[in-house]
Amino acid sequence: MTEDNVVYIGIKPVMNYVLAVVTQFNNGASEVVIKARGKAISRAVDVVEVSRNRFIEEAKVKDIKIGTEKIATDRGESNVSIIEIVMTK
Amino acid sequence: MTEDNVVYIGIKPVMNYVLAVVTQFNNGASEVVIKARGKAISRAVDVVEVSRNRFIEEAKVKDIKIGTEKIATDRGESNVSIIEIVMTK
Repeated sequence: MTEDNVVYIGIKPVMNYVLAVVTQFNNGASEVVIKARGKAISRAVDVVEVSRNRFIEEAKVKDIKIGTEKIATDRGESNVSIIEIVMTK
Repeated sequence: MTEDNVVYIGIKPVMNYVLAVVTQFNNGASEVVIKARGKAISRAVDVVEVSRNRFIEEAKVKDIKIGTEKIATDRGESNVSIIEIVMTK
């Protein structure tokens, strides 16, 4: 799996990221990793659910990992939660 | 496992739910399930991460499930994403 198969979730609408996931699978990827941190974690779950319920019904969730990352902010280091969801078809 | 071991994540501050999780474990639970839906999903991940990084360091994430639930709204049925995180120690 290359980094090409990773979709990073930000603040755009859910459907933008769903399109990215669907495109990866349609281009032949057997596995797509959805990554998000902080408040975007909820959106990451939405992206996975919409992708598999409406677009790629044979897709499965293979693995879900959560963790904590340190990020630099104006006021020093801060912890942020992260999620990685691996989808396969 | 009884329903007593479930912590539902809502809109309160993260530490309120961390306290609920820590209390469950301190009361002898070997497993606590953290459930959330919609935008509270990000907070659920925060609760798990803070609980195991700062308070119950022997706790592990045993399982994470995501899914979709239908909820009734003013404008009819709507889909909402859900997460269930099982912690053990």
